[in-house]
Amino acid sequence: MTQHILPGGIIGILGGGQLGRMTALAASAMGYETHIYTDRAGSPAAQVSSHVTVAEYDDEAALTAFAKAVDVVSYEFENIPANPIKTIQQYVQVRPGHIPLHISQNRLREKAFYREHNVPTNQTMPVHNLKELQAAYQEMAAAMDGNDRAVLKTAEMGYDGKGQAIITPETDLQAAYDSIHRQPAILEAFVPFVKEISVIVARSTEGEMLAYPPAENIHEDGILRTSTVPANIRQDTAEAATAHAKTLAQSLHVVGLLAVEFFVLKDGSVMVNEMAPRPHNSGHWTMDGAQTSQFEQFVRAICGLPLGSPAMHTPVRMENLIGHDMEKLPDIAARPDAKLHLYGKKEVREGRKMAHINWLLKA
Amino acid sequence: MTQHILPGGIIGILGGGQLGRMTALAASAMGYETHIYTDRAGSPAAQVSSHVTVAEYDDEAALTAFAKAVDVVSYEFENIPANPIKTIQQYVQVRPGHIPLHISQNRLREKAFYREHNVPTNQTMPVHNLKELQAAYQEMAAAMDGNDRAVLKTAEMGYDGKGQAIITPETDLQAAYDSIHRQPAILEAFVPFVKEISVIVARSTEGEMLAYPPAENIHEDGILRTSTVPANIRQDTAEAATAHAKTLAQSLHVVGLLAVEFFVLKDGSVMVNEMAPRPHNSGHWTMDGAQTSQFEQFVRAICGLPLGSPAMHTPVRMENLIGHDMEKLPDIAARPDAKLHLYGKKEVREGRKMAHINWLLKA
Repeated sequence: MTQHILPGGIIGILGGGQLGRMTALAASAMGYETHIYTDRAGSPAAQVSSHVTVAEYDDEAALTAFAKAVDVVSYEFENIPANPIKTIQQYVQVRPGHIPLHISQNRLREKAFYREHNVPTNQTMPVHNLKELQAAYQEMAAAMDGNDRAVLKTAEMGYDGKGQAIITPETDLQAAYDSIHRQPAILEAFVPFVKEISVIVARSTEGEMLAYPPAENIHEDGILRTSTVPANIRQDTAEAATAHAKTLAQSLHVVGLLAVEFFVLKDGSVMVNEMAPRPHNSGHWTMDGAQTSQFEQFVRAICGLPLGSPAMHTPVRMENLIGHDMEKLPDIAARPDAKLHLYGKKEVREGRKMAHINWLLKA
Repeated sequence: MTQHILPGGIIGILGGGQLGRMTALAASAMGYETHIYTDRAGSPAAQVSSHVTVAEYDDEAALTAFAKAVDVVSYEFENIPANPIKTIQQYVQVRPGHIPLHISQNRLREKAFYREHNVPTNQTMPVHNLKELQAAYQEMAAAMDGNDRAVLKTAEMGYDGKGQAIITPETDLQAAYDSIHRQPAILEAFVPFVKEISVIVARSTEGEMLAYPPAENIHEDGILRTSTVPANIRQDTAEAATAHAKTLAQSLHVVGLLAVEFFVLKDGSVMVNEMAPRPHNSGHWTMDGAQTSQFEQFVRAICGLPLGSPAMHTPVRMENLIGHDMEKLPDIAARPDAKLHLYGKKEVREGRKMAHINWLLKA
């Protein structure tokens, strides 16, 4: 189990999506090989990687062979069961590590972790059945001053707005609970934010931490639409968010990246929304706007290299192309300021992230 | 034969070296697939491409199948015989085109072309046998004022200082001619330059041209060691070189890139040395220093997209790692300001370009 993996080494990645793909491209540029472990054939990452294993995530033999064939393992999504990680860890290091994965894959644990480390977050209550939901919403609405909206989210496996329901006094709670398939859930007080931002922190094997400048994010229907850097926020807001993100990365002993999403309130203060211990959609601007892309930084961190500079060299607005947004591609490709990043997904589906464009903005 | 190829299309590349590799990585990022045609297995480009043909360059059947499988064809080296290009052109466009290839693969034609287009170059004479060499050197030395050095170069297939011999009054001309294997050659008057620079021009299907800022190059033993941008040259020197490079790209009807190397003389004037209609080693700095890397620009041009901005955002010194320079890799990888670009070559050989480092310089 080597700490430092030099170019020429093989990076194993669990997951075959676009984050794995962009990691593989960054790794190849630096002279690393990548090995993608995914349960689906023809995945975006597999198309650009030299080694691919297509197998289920509970296939012990495939996991073992994969672990033995690589020098380090990481993951590009956090909804990975604990067992495959345990199997792999018998043979090779998994970075960012088991702890950030364990915490970030469950919203209840995540919120508890924020409170434990004095990182401000919104009021939340666990929901295990309809009765708990009714009681929780009643208590929450009573405490909320003129704002009685809440969001019901599945505790696990939610992403891109999936597994969420808005709750207001008019909501049929039974229907709302049914809509998230009666899974263990969390009720979150709606935060009257004026802006959403995110901070991506890299942490090296030596514990060195460097943060990218905050991105200003716009979501629609729970899916990220655009991220703009620099964010139009106060200096002290940026500093607070960055400090909180570093606290979390440090406390989780992350080796790799930690992306943290924040709400910005009217008074300029921030509240953490959620986090992910991996490259993040809101960090895609770095590919054309930062001295070190988040994918290069991720590779540097998990391979034990020193971190590169996260400084912005060019202002960027990242725009996701989702589903039929792809019809705009011919127009976008005809623009000289559009940096194209396509994920190699053959089938366009509604709500599916197909590509992103980094629009270079005048400084 | 489409003019415009959108992401999702397949780019065919003749040649499997590092220029093809870096083109393939840029193309993948943009959502293109690449198909590498090479006569060697396990090549740097093939490692990162989805489609590979390993066949000889005179294999008509393989060339035809390749041409039919792709949307456009380019090349990453200029020593390609005319016949494969002709075969391919029956099915699909070859860009930058046959003319720049034909001119740039022969030094005699190249020098004639410069003169025809009033681009200043050094005095040269053709050499087809020992007698011609003796006569040519005698005439050249007599005309040279206090400088009687010349360089004998093979007319074709020379690169990285191979196929060259320095000629002085002390040189045994027979031995020099033998050393280049008595091939058709060119005798070039040595230019007392103070600096070497290069300019890379991109030209689109619409005839739009954009030039990168000149790079200042240092060669050792005929091989490029470093390229630094910005070059420490006068504004009028940069402008003259850029204008000449554009004249050549325009006259050759290049669709793609043209790299032009110049000598800078004491008085600030420039003389063209040689050119190549493809991405160029002296343009590798663009991968970490320019708004658009030369490889993205190359893809944009040959696919009929508008060109991206060639502006520098970060000063860079590019350093080639040649042969046993690779022993320095652990030290270099430990530097946060080193952008690593390795070519995936397993075997280290003397004089072999293994990798390059883009050192980010303080602005």
